[in-house]
Amino acid sequence: MSLIVVGTMAFDAIETPFGKINQIVGGSGVYAAYTASYFVNPVQQISIVGDDFPQEEMEELRKRGVHLDGVEIIKDKKSFFWSGRYHEDMNTRDTLITDLNVLADFDPKVPDSYQGAEFLMLGNLMPKLQLNVIQEMKERPKLIAMDTMNFWMDTAMNDLKIVLRYIDLLVVNDAEARQLTNHFSLVKAAKAIMQMGPKYLIIKKGEHGALLFHGDEVFFAPALPLEEVFDPTGAGDTFAGGFMGHMAKTKDLSFENMKRGIIVGSAMASFCVEKFGPTRLKEITKPDIDKRIQQFKELVNFDIELV
Amino acid sequence: MSLIVVGTMAFDAIETPFGKINQIVGGSGVYAAYTASYFVNPVQQISIVGDDFPQEEMEELRKRGVHLDGVEIIKDKKSFFWSGRYHEDMNTRDTLITDLNVLADFDPKVPDSYQGAEFLMLGNLMPKLQLNVIQEMKERPKLIAMDTMNFWMDTAMNDLKIVLRYIDLLVVNDAEARQLTNHFSLVKAAKAIMQMGPKYLIIKKGEHGALLFHGDEVFFAPALPLEEVFDPTGAGDTFAGGFMGHMAKTKDLSFENMKRGIIVGSAMASFCVEKFGPTRLKEITKPDIDKRIQQFKELVNFDIELV
Repeated sequence: MSLIVVGTMAFDAIETPFGKINQIVGGSGVYAAYTASYFVNPVQQISIVGDDFPQEEMEELRKRGVHLDGVEIIKDKKSFFWSGRYHEDMNTRDTLITDLNVLADFDPKVPDSYQGAEFLMLGNLMPKLQLNVIQEMKERPKLIAMDTMNFWMDTAMNDLKIVLRYIDLLVVNDAEARQLTNHFSLVKAAKAIMQMGPKYLIIKKGEHGALLFHGDEVFFAPALPLEEVFDPTGAGDTFAGGFMGHMAKTKDLSFENMKRGIIVGSAMASFCVEKFGPTRLKEITKPDIDKRIQQFKELVNFDIELV
Repeated sequence: MSLIVVGTMAFDAIETPFGKINQIVGGSGVYAAYTASYFVNPVQQISIVGDDFPQEEMEELRKRGVHLDGVEIIKDKKSFFWSGRYHEDMNTRDTLITDLNVLADFDPKVPDSYQGAEFLMLGNLMPKLQLNVIQEMKERPKLIAMDTMNFWMDTAMNDLKIVLRYIDLLVVNDAEARQLTNHFSLVKAAKAIMQMGPKYLIIKKGEHGALLFHGDEVFFAPALPLEEVFDPTGAGDTFAGGFMGHMAKTKDLSFENMKRGIIVGSAMASFCVEKFGPTRLKEITKPDIDKRIQQFKELVNFDIELV
């Protein structure tokens, strides 16, 4: 079993009400790979970095079973840099700086050694590039999931709608689901999106949890109520990495098993927000994860007799 | 078993993106009584109306086992009137008109026939009046729940904090929990509120569900994802009525049973929002309620093996 993760590997500068950090490793691919590596081996990474990206980080990822054959390293160029500030309401943030650097030339290729992967996670990226990756796969993966964002809806909606026809699962947040469909009701938006291609849809609602849709079925997973959300950066990518890690580990594409995947993703995201960047994702152990999943059970579990 | 409900009985004018109604019966007591009457009998209503309040509505309530001995009818005066407008985001609304009318002179009394009630729901009201009702009870009810709102935090915070010492359960929304404690984190706010008196706390988050806190325990109930929220007026009062109705029916004050109460309240609220005012609350049947509760089970139920 293997999972291909396409995403950024980058540097972030982050400011939250609880603190500030001027440089920390980040990027959707980094969060997703660290997370998925708890569940599936190998994670086959596709990304691009400059020669400033730390060797120790690469080594750390390798140690956890993340393959880096698909990570291009560009000489004399800088890695993607993002800087943002969160306010008290951690659901919104201001982007202060976006330096694309190497990302401007990203043209993701699937290395031969990755062919045959059964699970593919397409991180948020220009839709055309996401489509390229799908088309480079000689054998269609069992499950293709993708993330996207409002920027591509504004600038490349047609391309985006084409990619949607080729994927199984779309992962977006509530605002993106609304923008994509012009429906305010998330239930209506979900129906409209599933008619655009993906049979499955996850709508992330940040601190308000996540919804999974498939046909007429719907499942809701809460976010864990936390005393403090220290830094929400990467929580969405961590969620996706946990979900796809679970799916690749279990190879069971039933709706029931996707529910479990959503809970795993939510549990992993609840760790991610506890410290700056992906710090917590490198510290936790399998028993920590099990304990957290147990907390989710207790949080929503109820038993009621219908009379 | 009996449940006292203290709340308003009123007329509302409501405008939503889906329609407009110039006059419909409303008020926290009306929503809570109709809802609770599905679970407990009698519901003992304490309220005040003008002589314009429809006899047929009184008759309808009586038919459902709602006692009206505690409802004062004031000659030649008008019932409380509220008018509001909802925008696309149904979580926020503009109040257009508030005509207190008879409510300005409301001084709720507990009729002798209500003495001995084991459950007491204090709807949103001037805190001093809520305290009066508690003090009029010759025997302390087993469970005293109360609702309140930002207006009383702005104008009568000291009185409010006194009442909090006398109750078991506070029901507020997320903004109110934050305002009451100056904590943005709902977990921190919950801890602070439970130190003010109530052992139990419910924080309502509208379309994002509700949280129940007790000591270190927490339970989360989602709102049902609906295609359309037609009119959210009264959903919070319906939720409280469903919760207290379930508690009074079962007389089991355990945390486990409160979880069930929250689900019952959420299910009832999901009916409430389907039509203008309390219309739906008069139409539904016990099988409708059971079916809806089953939908909540399916919405959050998952089974995961920890390895």
